[in-house]
Amino acid sequence: MELPKVLLGAAAMSLAAAAGGELFERRKQPAVLGELAAGIVLGNLALFGVSGLDWLKSNEGLHLLAEVGVILLLFEVGLESRIDQLLAVGWSAALVAHIGVLIPFGLGWAVSAAFLPSAAWYTHMFVGATLTATSVGITARVIKDLGRMEAPESRIILGAAVVDDVLGLIILAVAAGMTQSAAKGGGASMDWTLVGGIVAKAAAFLVGAIVLGRLIHVNALRLAESFHSRGVTLVLALSFCFALSALAGMMGLAPIVGAFAAGLVLEDDDYAVFERRGFAPVHDMVRPIAAVLVPLFFVMMGLRADLRSFASWNVIGLALAVTVAAVAGKQACALGVLDKGVSRLTVGIGMIPRGEVGLIFAGMGASLTVAGQPVFDGAVMSAMIVMVLLTTLVTPPLLLWAFRRG
Amino acid sequence: MELPKVLLGAAAMSLAAAAGGELFERRKQPAVLGELAAGIVLGNLALFGVSGLDWLKSNEGLHLLAEVGVILLLFEVGLESRIDQLLAVGWSAALVAHIGVLIPFGLGWAVSAAFLPSAAWYTHMFVGATLTATSVGITARVIKDLGRMEAPESRIILGAAVVDDVLGLIILAVAAGMTQSAAKGGGASMDWTLVGGIVAKAAAFLVGAIVLGRLIHVNALRLAESFHSRGVTLVLALSFCFALSALAGMMGLAPIVGAFAAGLVLEDDDYAVFERRGFAPVHDMVRPIAAVLVPLFFVMMGLRADLRSFASWNVIGLALAVTVAAVAGKQACALGVLDKGVSRLTVGIGMIPRGEVGLIFAGMGASLTVAGQPVFDGAVMSAMIVMVLLTTLVTPPLLLWAFRRG
Repeated sequence: MELPKVLLGAAAMSLAAAAGGELFERRKQPAVLGELAAGIVLGNLALFGVSGLDWLKSNEGLHLLAEVGVILLLFEVGLESRIDQLLAVGWSAALVAHIGVLIPFGLGWAVSAAFLPSAAWYTHMFVGATLTATSVGITARVIKDLGRMEAPESRIILGAAVVDDVLGLIILAVAAGMTQSAAKGGGASMDWTLVGGIVAKAAAFLVGAIVLGRLIHVNALRLAESFHSRGVTLVLALSFCFALSALAGMMGLAPIVGAFAAGLVLEDDDYAVFERRGFAPVHDMVRPIAAVLVPLFFVMMGLRADLRSFASWNVIGLALAVTVAAVAGKQACALGVLDKGVSRLTVGIGMIPRGEVGLIFAGMGASLTVAGQPVFDGAVMSAMIVMVLLTTLVTPPLLLWAFRRG
Repeated sequence: MELPKVLLGAAAMSLAAAAGGELFERRKQPAVLGELAAGIVLGNLALFGVSGLDWLKSNEGLHLLAEVGVILLLFEVGLESRIDQLLAVGWSAALVAHIGVLIPFGLGWAVSAAFLPSAAWYTHMFVGATLTATSVGITARVIKDLGRMEAPESRIILGAAVVDDVLGLIILAVAAGMTQSAAKGGGASMDWTLVGGIVAKAAAFLVGAIVLGRLIHVNALRLAESFHSRGVTLVLALSFCFALSALAGMMGLAPIVGAFAAGLVLEDDDYAVFERRGFAPVHDMVRPIAAVLVPLFFVMMGLRADLRSFASWNVIGLALAVTVAAVAGKQACALGVLDKGVSRLTVGIGMIPRGEVGLIFAGMGASLTVAGQPVFDGAVMSAMIVMVLLTTLVTPPLLLWAFRRG
């Protein structure tokens, strides 16, 4: 982890991400896919005779920066959600979110079990978990571009996405917890009391972070009210985010669960006292840090895609089947729409993209190991990346068609 | 380097730095000393029966974040200096800078050799190198508060400081290069051809970075002119900084030499095209990242101060002698003032503070090893920290007195 290598790798990955993101944005595609594509290209240059970049994949310093990046991303997602919003999403959105998590989870598990008969149950579980996430950012962007933010379909999709984030993180906590237990030799099959324990722990963490965390955070802010340093609000907010992420990690949950909770707890209004004194808003200060670190995460995910694995029909089959399961699973969730006169098809399509959240889940699968073997090997990881790419690419045109049709 | 530990450590160190910085600022002292003091407290809690924080000192992830912090700091210093300023400082400032680097270097070497007869020559050399740096930020702040920015003394001090930065970095390059050569078994004494080679390499690097680097940077900016992403300017600037830092490191120079050169090459005007399109200025985007990472570096330096080492009279003697050498050495540089009617005493006092730059040099001394032994052990590092604290603390009142007297 020598410093010059980390710096050189970070520079190369940042530049590749910027170029990839720009290329995709110009084609009206989300920048995150361009960053992922940049990583796939960098990671597979060996196929074109250019080798010598493999150290990027295994450099611990670059992994650390990418992991801090994904923590900042979830913190930002949390900052954009508010607890009161979460509690006021309405029955349709809540039902859409729950069905949209459970059905893809089951379908993903089944597809994985069918295509990878020799893989362990926790690999199937992680495939299912990866299918649960919705990256609503892409949908929100299309809806905004169409000027349809106020349509009932849009409100249900965006409400469901907030609930979805919380449910997805609980599923991730369970999947990671079960895998860690398996890694410790905790049994070859599902243990339902363990599942119950992890769900209870995750729920307790979220509630505790929201209630106790809010108390601590508000009091820390009051203590710092008279501070002169312009960086104090940023330091408080990030320390809170890092501390909750660390706590989640130490409790055996994913650190990003803590980062999301920290973002959920923080409200822009909390910093009003500072902003009246001319301090920059916290979110504005987090943004440049995230702008540097988050793309490193997506490039790192792309580096893990091994194009050679597509020489196998089984991997191609898995990628396509998982994509179909991902799309079909989210169509099922449209059944949760209770309101009349709302297009279920539009809601179902809006929930399709897996984008960044799917990649985060897949990345966890690739980094967890049981008995020295990663839960997702190169082939499964590559199939998951194809699924993320396809679900995210098809959504904008489909959504456009659905809204125009309605 | 597990992620939760890195996050928890970063949160604890950030909060301690914010509290320490604020306490010092309220006493009209520079925040950097408060951050250093926070590190000293955290690192010596074991003296008060609180143990269990020693992992902070050896955590690789935290070291990486702190090292990126110091790179950003030098990048910012470089951003604030301009090449044309550097070439137009005038003879007095240039002479003051040169004398102010050479005399403290020699005095530091002599004091170290006297107090540490059993230490190796490269330890003496690093003590000398640590004494060369001027942290003019503290002086600039005092001058600004007094409204004396336009005084001839102020112009000489600030001009000398820019030259001083470059000379100090060359000295650091030589010290680090000689030590690495000693670590490889390259002889037990000074090798003057090696010194010449390193000086030539450092000078070539600086000139090359400025000429070639500027060409590459300006063309990269032109290529990115039509990019949509608001982060592209930040990514380009930081990638340039990281790439030059990595290059410096691979050439056997200190990475911060590259970071400073990158900052020197970048001019705010280069980004005017982007700012007209509503992009935030690069420096404004670098600032929050630096605000988070730079304090980690100073806390890390404080962690390395071992208060127990002051139980030895020899260490106390070294600390005081080195402080006297640091002050006296910069008084000698006032002899370089050629202009008439300028207070030499004021110029000499203005050059005293070692502040952050001194700490960076001392930190290099603590992290380089020869035959498994660090160049600066805990005792020498503690003495250097005392020197930095004292020289920085005495400057504001002395400077106030000197200006009022004039």
